[in-house]
Amino acid sequence: MLKVGVVGATGYTGEEIVKILTAHKKVNLTYLSAVIDKEEPISGIFPSLRGKTDLVCKKPNADEAVAAADLAFLALPHRVSMEIAPKFLKTGRKVIDLSADYRLAPDVYKVWYGTEHKDKANLTIAVYGLPELYKDAVRKANLVANPGCYPTSIILAVAPMVKSGAVDESFMIADSKSGVTGAGRKADIALSFGEVNENLKAYKINEHQHKPEINKILSEVAGKAVEIVFTPHLIPINRGILSTVYLKLKKKTDTKAVLTVYKNFYKNAPFVRIYDEGKLPQVRDVVNTNYCDIGVKVTGDTAIAVSCIDNLGKGAAGQAVQNMNIMCGFDETEGLKF
Amino acid sequence: MLKVGVVGATGYTGEEIVKILTAHKKVNLTYLSAVIDKEEPISGIFPSLRGKTDLVCKKPNADEAVAAADLAFLALPHRVSMEIAPKFLKTGRKVIDLSADYRLAPDVYKVWYGTEHKDKANLTIAVYGLPELYKDAVRKANLVANPGCYPTSIILAVAPMVKSGAVDESFMIADSKSGVTGAGRKADIALSFGEVNENLKAYKINEHQHKPEINKILSEVAGKAVEIVFTPHLIPINRGILSTVYLKLKKKTDTKAVLTVYKNFYKNAPFVRIYDEGKLPQVRDVVNTNYCDIGVKVTGDTAIAVSCIDNLGKGAAGQAVQNMNIMCGFDETEGLKF
Amino acid sequence: MLKVGVVGATGYTGEEIVKILTAHKKVNLTYLSAVIDKEEPISGIFPSLRGKTDLVCKKPNADEAVAAADLAFLALPHRVSMEIAPKFLKTGRKVIDLSADYRLAPDVYKVWYGTEHKDKANLTIAVYGLPELYKDAVRKANLVANPGCYPTSIILAVAPMVKSGAVDESFMIADSKSGVTGAGRKADIALSFGEVNENLKAYKINEHQHKPEINKILSEVAGKAVEIVFTPHLIPINRGILSTVYLKLKKKTDTKAVLTVYKNFYKNAPFVRIYDEGKLPQVRDVVNTNYCDIGVKVTGDTAIAVSCIDNLGKGAAGQAVQNMNIMCGFDETEGLKF
Amino acid sequence: MLKVGVVGATGYTGEEIVKILTAHKKVNLTYLSAVIDKEEPISGIFPSLRGKTDLVCKKPNADEAVAAADLAFLALPHRVSMEIAPKFLKTGRKVIDLSADYRLAPDVYKVWYGTEHKDKANLTIAVYGLPELYKDAVRKANLVANPGCYPTSIILAVAPMVKSGAVDESFMIADSKSGVTGAGRKADIALSFGEVNENLKAYKINEHQHKPEINKILSEVAGKAVEIVFTPHLIPINRGILSTVYLKLKKKTDTKAVLTVYKNFYKNAPFVRIYDEGKLPQVRDVVNTNYCDIGVKVTGDTAIAVSCIDNLGKGAAGQAVQNMNIMCGFDETEGLKF
Repeated sequence: MLKVGVVGATGYTGEEIVKILTAHKKVNLTYLSAVIDKEEPISGIFPSLRGKTDLVCKKPNADEAVAAADLAFLALPHRVSMEIAPKFLKTGRKVIDLSADYRLAPDVYKVWYGTEHKDKANLTIAVYGLPELYKDAVRKANLVANPGCYPTSIILAVAPMVKSGAVDESFMIADSKSGVTGAGRKADIALSFGEVNENLKAYKINEHQHKPEINKILSEVAGKAVEIVFTPHLIPINRGILSTVYLKLKKKTDTKAVLTVYKNFYKNAPFVRIYDEGKLPQVRDVVNTNYCDIGVKVTGDTAIAVSCIDNLGKGAAGQAVQNMNIMCGFDETEGLKF
Repeated sequence: MLKVGVVGATGYTGEEIVKILTAHKKVNLTYLSAVIDKEEPISGIFPSLRGKTDLVCKKPNADEAVAAADLAFLALPHRVSMEIAPKFLKTGRKVIDLSADYRLAPDVYKVWYGTEHKDKANLTIAVYGLPELYKDAVRKANLVANPGCYPTSIILAVAPMVKSGAVDESFMIADSKSGVTGAGRKADIALSFGEVNENLKAYKINEHQHKPEINKILSEVAGKAVEIVFTPHLIPINRGILSTVYLKLKKKTDTKAVLTVYKNFYKNAPFVRIYDEGKLPQVRDVVNTNYCDIGVKVTGDTAIAVSCIDNLGKGAAGQAVQNMNIMCGFDETEGLKF
Repeated sequence: MLKVGVVGATGYTGEEIVKILTAHKKVNLTYLSAVIDKEEPISGIFPSLRGKTDLVCKKPNADEAVAAADLAFLALPHRVSMEIAPKFLKTGRKVIDLSADYRLAPDVYKVWYGTEHKDKANLTIAVYGLPELYKDAVRKANLVANPGCYPTSIILAVAPMVKSGAVDESFMIADSKSGVTGAGRKADIALSFGEVNENLKAYKINEHQHKPEINKILSEVAGKAVEIVFTPHLIPINRGILSTVYLKLKKKTDTKAVLTVYKNFYKNAPFVRIYDEGKLPQVRDVVNTNYCDIGVKVTGDTAIAVSCIDNLGKGAAGQAVQNMNIMCGFDETEGLKF
Repeated sequence: MLKVGVVGATGYTGEEIVKILTAHKKVNLTYLSAVIDKEEPISGIFPSLRGKTDLVCKKPNADEAVAAADLAFLALPHRVSMEIAPKFLKTGRKVIDLSADYRLAPDVYKVWYGTEHKDKANLTIAVYGLPELYKDAVRKANLVANPGCYPTSIILAVAPMVKSGAVDESFMIADSKSGVTGAGRKADIALSFGEVNENLKAYKINEHQHKPEINKILSEVAGKAVEIVFTPHLIPINRGILSTVYLKLKKKTDTKAVLTVYKNFYKNAPFVRIYDEGKLPQVRDVVNTNYCDIGVKVTGDTAIAVSCIDNLGKGAAGQAVQNMNIMCGFDETEGLKF
């Protein structure tokens, strides 16, 4: 059994990773930590874990963590992960980082996160953990940069068409709608029930910190620099992202032909479900799962793809466990068919 | 005092019209009807109206309605309005129809509503009741076709740019997010709380019955046939529509310049509020009002405009009363600054 | 492997039973039926089941059902179950009925459900499937009447104190708050999002059809006829019931002493979690589980107990599977520790 | 025109007071302040106020406030009001305080708010602003302590029966369900959307700081010391409180007789609506109003009364304006029939 630790276990993502791992057959959960007032069993902090684990959540201590776990999930704020990850890596531990710290080139990172990158060495060995695009690299990785939730929903919806060369990349639109847990568990008036409930808003139009991550990966897929216009919206639901992407086609085609492109692209992807013509996915069908459901409609010279994920599932914790399964030679779906 | 009736008073739109009219200084509410089991005071059906009006809601009777009111709001299902409206018009009454029956040419109507139009004569005299575009015509109209909620939110966000000629009309996108009351008050599993809550979905991609209405008006504004790709989404809120429109610009410009186009276009529109650069509207700021709030962001050669309305306010009942004010020479804002 | 069928698989409860059974190690799901327009894989009706089962959902056919399954879950409307159950029972099949048809004496049933009971013979052998009170009887049962959701939440919160004899039964109050799925999946304006969202209401005060069921069982526990005042409330959440019960104590005591009564009463109940003094349960901690969480506070001569369940979990599908586990000699928790 | 100021204008209650006053015919809004980073028009902070007022919201300055307003609404945190109120009062200004600072005797205040009262002199002249019970005193008051939201909903539901002497005060229960804005606008994880949405919880059972306020007033009504057991619950809605109160009757009676008691008690109360037998109020019918709707059901020797208010309307801002109308000799309903 693999000994696994979760650093940052009391956020929404950390809680979700712990829930998944308590039911995972190939690992032992051996370490939990978070910035907390007093150390206590995680089931005291999250009563929903009662009866599943009695493991105590400790205050942060990197040495303790390294000693206790062969593989660590870092569910930490940006800028913090890059200070912890090296301690695991230099002792041969594997790391799956859910922050943005290992997703971008150092110069881009500095622009978007306002600070010099502190672990450029490991940045060069980090693998982007989107298994549908980089499974072979993930298999060999010691450090995986787990994708953001918006990027996961958008890249999976756009990649097959960009790869196919059928798209005019000069005008691609991604209009994303996200639930609230995507912003993490924190005290923030903008995330309070009274502000979010019965409200809709767009924010950070084409200025969201996930933009460079999306364009970096889409450019790798396209084999050239491409950019997509990205507008995030905040929706009053707990979990789920629905992204509606608009792609201009070089030549007219039909929905059936485009669906074939998607189905072929994902024929070996156990967690991507392509819908048949005339059907569209809904968030309710992916919540509490690791699936990304995609439906497509072609009208005139525009292809519209709708993708749905659970931002805490395929958008974070579920995908992180999927990456662990691949890194460690487990069945890719182990612990993820709940 | 103008004698006013509401035919179809028990739907969400009818209820809202009644609420507004009970506080309107220039009219007397003299007639209410709906398909109901027993006639009773409307305040018995909607307790929130207690203390505001004791008017009895009758079962439908066109002659009674015509006799009782100088102006009628028809808050009826599509296909029903065109059977009632003529009876008011031939006796010189004014009619504001909130259905789609007088918004489209007969051939287009047949395609989208599946039936031959039954009142082609009055169709020719109907005026599209979007005051920001057609105020002079509304002023002289006896029959106003009150716009749909999606079209109101999209047309107001797109018209200034299309009119300005700065837009490449070959690729315009409207991604709309709507609350649930837009679908009306009815028994429908798809609208039940258990299906809508904690869910997001896109539906009828570029096949929604509001599509021809949007493109008809945008083409009139453009002075040529144009089409916008329209994707509606259902969001778990009661009231409100947020439309995010993506417009490709013929030449690069900046947000400030585009905002000037909007501010000039709406300088005489009391119910359109254009936000300053860097600010975006939210649904919560227009709910229970007749305002349409619009914010803009330009990035590269794309202009993104975000518009917010209350689908029952500016998207239906509020706009209908605004049209009445204009048709009858009242202050355009009378009864609408609640 | 036990062959299991679900009759009425497309309601909220049926869907939940199917979800649980697809992950249950001791059973094969061999039959599904519902009143549907066309027979298709259940995963086509509930996309969330894609990848979990390809079983086709048939139109109702009792003979087919009896032939296909050794044990049947009846997730049917009241009055329908009593017409189907006998067909399974007379061939030696086991039945777990989730309707109210086998919970009440025939005379009481007639009063509350407005019709003569059609299967009085089997009514005499039906066992009330609340394992925390009747586990031995469930073990031997061929027909289990699965409790209602309100009764489960209230009886589990009241039984220990009534049993202890410390309560003045002349004034017991149960104030219950329920999510919307408790009313089932149906087209009903009163359950539409626009009516339920941002609303709270009490309904059927002490006249709810679950009242006789609650009082029947509490009287069995008390060993004499007792009645509790029961007020149900509808709350805008999908899943969950929180019941707040108020019990007058014969003599003053404290929270700690009362908690001891609860902990002893449930010491062998794997799905009842009693909270420590000073802590209270929340619905979020039991949603998507089979747990009933209970917290207690004593003030003056009143004991207040708060119980939380998932109305589709411990309140319906989860408890039904728990009963199956007991009836069939499986581990009581098999398939229920998700 | 009366010059009116709002101190603490950026909380939910302050925002609501400003909204009401902008449409009030007898007052001029002359001063707004709040703890803010930069002074700007209140319509910049709350876009929904655009077009209603351009008044600038200042940083707190008591002297400025006293100079600008004849009457001040203090929408401040507990403990802060008692430091500001005296400055208005000693210059002959009128004050309506929405905090708890002037609702309790100094010794009780110290127990529940953990600090010595700093303005005992004015405490003796403060009038409890529940017009349905204390209208004459409010008429003459210079300092009104505006009731809390829970107390308003409970006292109005209990007072008529306690006054009638028909109730056995030894066992009275108030089970209240409140929306989230009752807790105010603040950064608090417990109030974040992710924690509140799809959740229900009871909290501070019989330990809520509103308990002494409720029992103080009910005792005044009863003419002797009485206590009610009070359990507050947090519900995922923005606005509204529904309180279900359970009262043991000394002798059996029926719903009709009890309703007569309520209707007589409130026959001169323009904002209390008593429902007819068989009907119960819903939160949706009082949201955005100043009404308290009450329905009653008698079963056996228990009377159950259900009251609904908008916690920001009759529970705070609306009631504060109602008190101002009475203090200043305006029509009691002026500005409150929106």
